[in-house]
Amino acid sequence: MNTIYTTLISQVRERTPLIHHITNYVTVNDCANITLAIGASPIMADALEEVANIARIASAVVLNMGTLNERTILSMLAAGKAANEAGVPVVFDPVGVGASALRNEAAAQLTSEIKISVLRGNISEIRFLAGLPSETQGVDASNADLKNAGDTATIAKMLSTRLNCVTVITGAVDTISDSKEVVCLENGHPMLGRITGTGCMCSSLIGAFCGVSPDKPMEAAIAALLSMGIAGEIAFEKSGREGTGSFRVALHDAVSHMSAEILNERMKFL
Amino acid sequence: MNTIYTTLISQVRERTPLIHHITNYVTVNDCANITLAIGASPIMADALEEVANIARIASAVVLNMGTLNERTILSMLAAGKAANEAGVPVVFDPVGVGASALRNEAAAQLTSEIKISVLRGNISEIRFLAGLPSETQGVDASNADLKNAGDTATIAKMLSTRLNCVTVITGAVDTISDSKEVVCLENGHPMLGRITGTGCMCSSLIGAFCGVSPDKPMEAAIAALLSMGIAGEIAFEKSGREGTGSFRVALHDAVSHMSAEILNERMKFL
Amino acid sequence: MNTIYTTLISQVRERTPLIHHITNYVTVNDCANITLAIGASPIMADALEEVANIARIASAVVLNMGTLNERTILSMLAAGKAANEAGVPVVFDPVGVGASALRNEAAAQLTSEIKISVLRGNISEIRFLAGLPSETQGVDASNADLKNAGDTATIAKMLSTRLNCVTVITGAVDTISDSKEVVCLENGHPMLGRITGTGCMCSSLIGAFCGVSPDKPMEAAIAALLSMGIAGEIAFEKSGREGTGSFRVALHDAVSHMSAEILNERMKFL
Repeated sequence: MNTIYTTLISQVRERTPLIHHITNYVTVNDCANITLAIGASPIMADALEEVANIARIASAVVLNMGTLNERTILSMLAAGKAANEAGVPVVFDPVGVGASALRNEAAAQLTSEIKISVLRGNISEIRFLAGLPSETQGVDASNADLKNAGDTATIAKMLSTRLNCVTVITGAVDTISDSKEVVCLENGHPMLGRITGTGCMCSSLIGAFCGVSPDKPMEAAIAALLSMGIAGEIAFEKSGREGTGSFRVALHDAVSHMSAEILNERMKFL
Repeated sequence: MNTIYTTLISQVRERTPLIHHITNYVTVNDCANITLAIGASPIMADALEEVANIARIASAVVLNMGTLNERTILSMLAAGKAANEAGVPVVFDPVGVGASALRNEAAAQLTSEIKISVLRGNISEIRFLAGLPSETQGVDASNADLKNAGDTATIAKMLSTRLNCVTVITGAVDTISDSKEVVCLENGHPMLGRITGTGCMCSSLIGAFCGVSPDKPMEAAIAALLSMGIAGEIAFEKSGREGTGSFRVALHDAVSHMSAEILNERMKFL
Repeated sequence: MNTIYTTLISQVRERTPLIHHITNYVTVNDCANITLAIGASPIMADALEEVANIARIASAVVLNMGTLNERTILSMLAAGKAANEAGVPVVFDPVGVGASALRNEAAAQLTSEIKISVLRGNISEIRFLAGLPSETQGVDASNADLKNAGDTATIAKMLSTRLNCVTVITGAVDTISDSKEVVCLENGHPMLGRITGTGCMCSSLIGAFCGVSPDKPMEAAIAALLSMGIAGEIAFEKSGREGTGSFRVALHDAVSHMSAEILNERMKFL
């Protein structure tokens, strides 16, 4: 048994870490349900008057730019700073960075003023943050960026060094780096790209695992990505051919049954 | 046949009461769908410019603090007052009260300025509102509060007297009091705690039943809790072992098929 | 094969048009997932600082009044005007118009300041916009309006002429007019009215088809309504008797498998 990751999943289920999300209104229900499915407890709260207090009592904070606006940018800054002061790990999901000046400036401010534990994005978002040519237009990775992904290991490493965080690039292969090491995972299924929110849900799971492993964000991120990737495979095997609605239901089912045994049996490192 | 509750469910399906929600963006879709599933018609509207008008034409108003902010607190106050003037019953769900000053102050203001028909919360939220020691940190009941629930009947009765409303404490056993009587229900299933929004959905169903029974909020609350608890049992029997995704789908299915016959057959009073 | 509509669905799947939504927080997740299911790419963004930029790079813009407020009205105006300047088609869904002055004024302003390509509503909403007596109270068509629908073809034609757009009235029969022609579709199933968001999802699908057919909004609207109506039939056949939860899952499944062949085989014009 690869004891690191399998221990972490048992710890999430035992300790029920509180995961504070400031996230978008598109996939927030999926994020709450996936957080519960893995065994953690979600709280979504974005009012400036309360976010610092809630971030301090949380086990991890997840900041997701999906539908950000001026009000929630301020809340993310306040929550992130409070989390930093309290030693609570922060996961950052720069949804759609590259698609508008608002998103670009918010991501720049959040990454410069907050110490991020784990940054997760698709290849378009990560290339943009790394200062490389990027063709992000929406919230999904562009085909051009997918074909021209380049050496994702090098990009992840570079960005991790610059931001002093773990960087995760999700895609057909997931790449995770803490600036020194790079790990690549092969678990997952293309159907994960046919429903909304699977990226956001990855970030929520990273938050859940960071909640029991704040000092080992690399291991937490890997355990989260394995859980999501393997759940995607199981969901496709069970009902992916039915269509995207059934696949989504089966994905939640699979995360809710994820265990040390399943992780250990199916994890595939490149 | 216990004619009170079975009559109410038929009336909801016949009259399609309009249920105005000012609620959180996490579980709002579940609330709308469960309102439709029981036979009522949901309208979600939170702009200060329109909430009073909509509350007046509604059959019930549901105020839920899940993701409140300064803007929606003002809207809840306006909607609640308009509902009071028009004789429209108000259901109040103080999600996460105890977790932040913002929530505590909002709950205090809403309960003092608005005449509530039915208040519904978990044991942590209700203990906090009753002025008892409480360990709420998130939006779920804390383990300490669950173990130390005390005499929920006494707490519900006391809070009902103080706020002049029906108080509902949902949990493994549901406790309902109108300050004189106390009723305890045993229906339900632990899986209801493994998906988000089941508390919010209970409040929506209470709204739907109050919409056809504004003068008997105790009966309305009991009928709603029976519907949700029994639907939870049926959903678990049908597909709870599949996981949380399938359970959630089956829960909506079961509410959409809830009938006087099923209520009558399965209701379990303690 | 009726080549117009079957060609359009293949084009959506090949070109993955980016569909910018400013929509309500109740059904936004359904709208994102249905947009993905038909083969397009959704982006939900409502901050005034970015909506014009995103509207310009989108293939279509969907404006939905479901939970509008002062902030999002301004965003809708900005996005709509930017789309007009860039030649990007705009779909408008006047959810709940007639239910409040806020909605009535917003709809009036949006339709006067923005060139709409396709307007979609239920009979209550469309009657209100057409200046006819209407009993809208919530977001669903009122029974009175359903019984008193009158000559929907005439109403759709009149409103299309006045607003210089394609008008769609969805219901048991869907009526589509571009002021000259009127087309009526019989596909669909009553279960579509028992879950939230099917109207919003129709508007999202219209956006997806307009995204590949900006110059033929009538054909785009028909292809979208056929897709939704036929998916409703397939979903009911597959699992509608299970209840509303299963029906909703099956609806997403059916849209994700919608094809030229299925459209061609099942389309029913009145």
